[in-house]
Amino acid sequence: MITNQLLNPGSIVVVGASNNAHKPGGAILRNLINGGYAGELRAVNPKEAEVQGVAAFADVKDIPDTDLAILAIPAPLCPDAVEVLAAEKQVRAFIILSAGFGEETREGALLENRILDTVNKYGASLIGPNCIGLMNTWHHSVFSQPIPQLHSQGVDLISSSGATAVFILESAVTKGLQFNSVWSVGNAKQIGVEDVLQYMDEHFNPETDSKIKLLYIESIGDPDRMLFHASSLIRKGCRIAAIKAGSSESGSRAASSHTGAIASSDSAVEALFRKAGVVRCYSREELTTVGCIFTLPELKGKNFAIITHAGGPGVMLTDALSKGGLNVPKLQGPVAEELKSKLYPGASVGNPIDILATGTPEHLRLCLDYCEEKFDEIDAVMAIFGTPGLVTMFEMYDVLHEKMQTCRKPIFPILPSINTAGAEVDAFLAKGHVNFADEVTLGTALSRIVNAPRPANNEIELFGVDVPRIRRIIDSIAEDSYIAPHLVQALLHSAGIPVVEEFVSDKKEEVLAFARRTGFPVVAKVVGPVHKSDVGGVVLNIKSEQHLALEFDRMMQIPEARSVMAQPMLKGTELFIGAKYEEKFGHVVLCGLGGIFVEVLKDVSSGLAPLSYEEAYSMIRSLRAYKIIKGTRGQKGLNEDKFAEIIVRLSTLLRFATEIKEMDINPLLATDKQVVAVDARIRVEKKRE
Amino acid sequence: MITNQLLNPGSIVVVGASNNAHKPGGAILRNLINGGYAGELRAVNPKEAEVQGVAAFADVKDIPDTDLAILAIPAPLCPDAVEVLAAEKQVRAFIILSAGFGEETREGALLENRILDTVNKYGASLIGPNCIGLMNTWHHSVFSQPIPQLHSQGVDLISSSGATAVFILESAVTKGLQFNSVWSVGNAKQIGVEDVLQYMDEHFNPETDSKIKLLYIESIGDPDRMLFHASSLIRKGCRIAAIKAGSSESGSRAASSHTGAIASSDSAVEALFRKAGVVRCYSREELTTVGCIFTLPELKGKNFAIITHAGGPGVMLTDALSKGGLNVPKLQGPVAEELKSKLYPGASVGNPIDILATGTPEHLRLCLDYCEEKFDEIDAVMAIFGTPGLVTMFEMYDVLHEKMQTCRKPIFPILPSINTAGAEVDAFLAKGHVNFADEVTLGTALSRIVNAPRPANNEIELFGVDVPRIRRIIDSIAEDSYIAPHLVQALLHSAGIPVVEEFVSDKKEEVLAFARRTGFPVVAKVVGPVHKSDVGGVVLNIKSEQHLALEFDRMMQIPEARSVMAQPMLKGTELFIGAKYEEKFGHVVLCGLGGIFVEVLKDVSSGLAPLSYEEAYSMIRSLRAYKIIKGTRGQKGLNEDKFAEIIVRLSTLLRFATEIKEMDINPLLATDKQVVAVDARIRVEKKRE
Repeated sequence: MITNQLLNPGSIVVVGASNNAHKPGGAILRNLINGGYAGELRAVNPKEAEVQGVAAFADVKDIPDTDLAILAIPAPLCPDAVEVLAAEKQVRAFIILSAGFGEETREGALLENRILDTVNKYGASLIGPNCIGLMNTWHHSVFSQPIPQLHSQGVDLISSSGATAVFILESAVTKGLQFNSVWSVGNAKQIGVEDVLQYMDEHFNPETDSKIKLLYIESIGDPDRMLFHASSLIRKGCRIAAIKAGSSESGSRAASSHTGAIASSDSAVEALFRKAGVVRCYSREELTTVGCIFTLPELKGKNFAIITHAGGPGVMLTDALSKGGLNVPKLQGPVAEELKSKLYPGASVGNPIDILATGTPEHLRLCLDYCEEKFDEIDAVMAIFGTPGLVTMFEMYDVLHEKMQTCRKPIFPILPSINTAGAEVDAFLAKGHVNFADEVTLGTALSRIVNAPRPANNEIELFGVDVPRIRRIIDSIAEDSYIAPHLVQALLHSAGIPVVEEFVSDKKEEVLAFARRTGFPVVAKVVGPVHKSDVGGVVLNIKSEQHLALEFDRMMQIPEARSVMAQPMLKGTELFIGAKYEEKFGHVVLCGLGGIFVEVLKDVSSGLAPLSYEEAYSMIRSLRAYKIIKGTRGQKGLNEDKFAEIIVRLSTLLRFATEIKEMDINPLLATDKQVVAVDARIRVEKKRE
Repeated sequence: MITNQLLNPGSIVVVGASNNAHKPGGAILRNLINGGYAGELRAVNPKEAEVQGVAAFADVKDIPDTDLAILAIPAPLCPDAVEVLAAEKQVRAFIILSAGFGEETREGALLENRILDTVNKYGASLIGPNCIGLMNTWHHSVFSQPIPQLHSQGVDLISSSGATAVFILESAVTKGLQFNSVWSVGNAKQIGVEDVLQYMDEHFNPETDSKIKLLYIESIGDPDRMLFHASSLIRKGCRIAAIKAGSSESGSRAASSHTGAIASSDSAVEALFRKAGVVRCYSREELTTVGCIFTLPELKGKNFAIITHAGGPGVMLTDALSKGGLNVPKLQGPVAEELKSKLYPGASVGNPIDILATGTPEHLRLCLDYCEEKFDEIDAVMAIFGTPGLVTMFEMYDVLHEKMQTCRKPIFPILPSINTAGAEVDAFLAKGHVNFADEVTLGTALSRIVNAPRPANNEIELFGVDVPRIRRIIDSIAEDSYIAPHLVQALLHSAGIPVVEEFVSDKKEEVLAFARRTGFPVVAKVVGPVHKSDVGGVVLNIKSEQHLALEFDRMMQIPEARSVMAQPMLKGTELFIGAKYEEKFGHVVLCGLGGIFVEVLKDVSSGLAPLSYEEAYSMIRSLRAYKIIKGTRGQKGLNEDKFAEIIVRLSTLLRFATEIKEMDINPLLATDKQVVAVDARIRVEKKRE
């Protein structure tokens, strides 16, 4: 639990405080003092009467009642100290910096458990152990550097790795990014990343609270809670970006070795972030760039003007925006000509707007005015202004500063001369702005944000889904395995998913009669063996009774063959839907075009069940092969609405049948009129007490 | 031409020199003085006897003989000054900073022409006009800042945009990248990017010359020369990376507006860079990161060890390397256990090797030793070492420095604490090293380098290509248009490209006789209309004479129909080869899988004719769909050798028939045994005097 004593302690004691700033107990006290902590500060140190000018006590037993205790003493000494502080000194918040707990040894884990019991008994908060601490606008309880600018509207950074948080700050401070709080949860014995998000969500005050959250996580312990609170915060107006490290196989092994947690599959993480509306990042540089973009007003559209006095970066930025699906529309006509007439000869206004190296601050102001008021097609402005050092940039950046206060459209400052105009950039940052030193890094990060979906709603589509029947079927299954074809059919029917008519029998005459009724050509498949194709158990396009009779006889000779299934042979384009139950995440649903698209090109998108229509459409549209579904070059498209409907219905089915651990419909055959499931496999596994 | 007076002037005169460092003529003089120029320095200024301590002359007529003249005077004054300096003062190198020439007005272009005539007459060099100048280890003849560290083994930067060069330097100096020379060619009236490359190639001295070239270009005026000298330099041991801005449609419009040059198609640029072995970059950040990587020894393999004392960045880097096709192999076994036993408890050696936050410089040394000497599977090491500020990093970075001097395997220093350990990082850079502050940016840039092909050889595959016959056919064509099917067939035959047998006639009985001979099913296509499919002029899988007769009658009714072509109906997977003649570049050849792969997924790779086998294989293997060609999941692959052969043969055909402006073979039908052209179109266009 997160107590007020943790966030706004009236008094803090550093246990193990030191005069030596090279020790955690010294560095954290120095940071608290330098950060101007306005509450009462105490130190515990058996050898000193005063530490860094702060009154020191020989033992925790000697201190007056205190809100927050920071422990920088060896692990074995921590449990007793916590006991005394909680029981006798009313301490209701602990930050334990020390390592040597569960992350190292079994004995350490036991120490950790004792501490947790005490802390929970007294209703106190615990950050750590094995962390760099916590800092916010009120107290800088971290032993690390750098300390960023802290501001109530700055970024909240929550990291499961302390060192990584430190390195994220290194990347952030250079850009001028300010912070409201930095949480390093360490071993997260009591408070993990999800807990911090939950607290922020449940106590959210839209008037006063920061609306930007950046996360660094290596494992997601409680995906449901992460999803719930992340999407809730985003719906309340927050913007969240996260690195989930360990996205590759080797990276996932590395992450497990770093945190000891079992890695979640990357498609589950991807699906969770999509559903929550979290912008996924892959590097510190990208995360802090996205954080900087979040500090600017949200985009209302995708059309950018680029104003610069140096052509090259404008061209590279145009390339980057275009590749990310954003536009740099050509500006022309009388208004553009009017603007051009007010700039120096040779200036161009076609977008990028190039005011030339000799362009003045007034030219910049004029261009910004035109972009705000006269170019209605423009949604946002990128201003690229560096210098070869002939003149200072103070005036230019002042114009930028002034316009950023008032402009109705977002203005992105790109100030590349971080050395030559270092003083000017610093002055600009000191006014609370951020700086994007590399235009392409900005363009790429911005595309990532614009292309991230909004958080999904939580409605479950129930229309036409026969939940009691689904439960009856699932409950009737006794064995953990792939279930029989007629049960697969029944489950899909119950969910309202159209399925090709089919007939299973071990009697040849019955199969032939079915084929006569539905008409040739038909498909015949052996029932029994799991990998039918590999044993010659699937034959397409059987055009006559005679041929079907021959195949029936042959298939019944295949080992494990129990019967033969016949279906009319449908035509259409193959689609694919698959689902897998991921421990803690629930069902991850994958969709794509069938065949090589799934198997070779790996062109699938993922969502977390249950899925709304909006999510299903977003999944379909994020496929590389979406144009095939939409139809191209005079070719009719496929029925996207029916495909989305089946994805939604399947996800509802899964929601009520969590015993389904794995399933796929492969293929679904799609035309412009219909989408029909042709083959499906479902594997059920039940937990037994 | 590039004269020795430009590179190593014994004397320099700044015409328009100023005491005001806010003017180009003042800033460039200051840079020359501060750069410790050791030759004789002179100034021309009508009002001063001395400028910045340098003797000043009232007029160019008054100065003694001088090697290099830098002009910072209004454009209209330049031609006369150049005339006097070249004719009377033996000046054989000019750098003209002034703007107001061809980039602005027609009058300016005339001034520029006059200057060029004079300069050429006297065999002098001309850099600019409208540029920031040229700097090398001998003289800093630029007016801009920042001035990077200059070193004879540093980077050569050649930029077609002065401001962009400046901003590239901003990004470079932060990383510690050193330079041998920086060229901003401005209007490139005499010396352009290609000329600088040519000079470097023709005068290359492997003992003394810098081997790293970074380019920023917005248009490629002379692709042949660029290709020839870039690949030649790379074959001599150089490494070249380049940004060609304007890769998107909007970006290309922006680039044209910036430089006035007509944009080359991006696939032509891509093909040229592939052929030359140039690593393509898209941002300043990426270019300078690649430049930093180039300063380290070349990789001998793809297996990396990551050594760190902070887990998170190691995980993110592992992800980035894995995504780029590089490996972070698991380290295990007795040697790994031995290393582990020498580190602190809790350290892990599985790779990433995590020596813990408390790990010492000696631990780092030990790990580097093991990676160099005992882990044979490791090709290179990434060392990630930042700090939360408790201890200084001098010792740690000294170990890194020492090992980097001697280690047989490349070591990549990743030092993220650019603020907190700023002094340590600066000290490390001062020893001549670079720093990669963001591990993922490094990982991504490295993948780009590793995946760039080597320069292609220049051999033309002639075996089985009947060049005289090709020329006879081409010469026989009178009209500019798509050529007749029998000529297409004849050209492909002459190039040794297997073509499906086909027969064209306007007599039904002849067509039927052909089909009887080759056997049904056949394909029938109308001859005459260009977009056959759109007018119902293609019918596949005709199985009987009767059907063929009907289709013949129908097709001959189609407007513009002249005759009907019949082919046996082949089976196989559709492949595609296309080619287009690009002004100045020659033929760009595209290949891919046919149908949706080309049309919807745009999964094509490009090469510049003529192509070697190595290039053809590299093109095929860089397709996303390559796995389909290779064969997957028990499916036989396609005959890659024959596909490559056809690409090579086609490129030879094009080499000897430059009148072919556009062609495609679509489809080629491929099985594991053969690849056969089924349909092809060739458009010929001849230049007529």
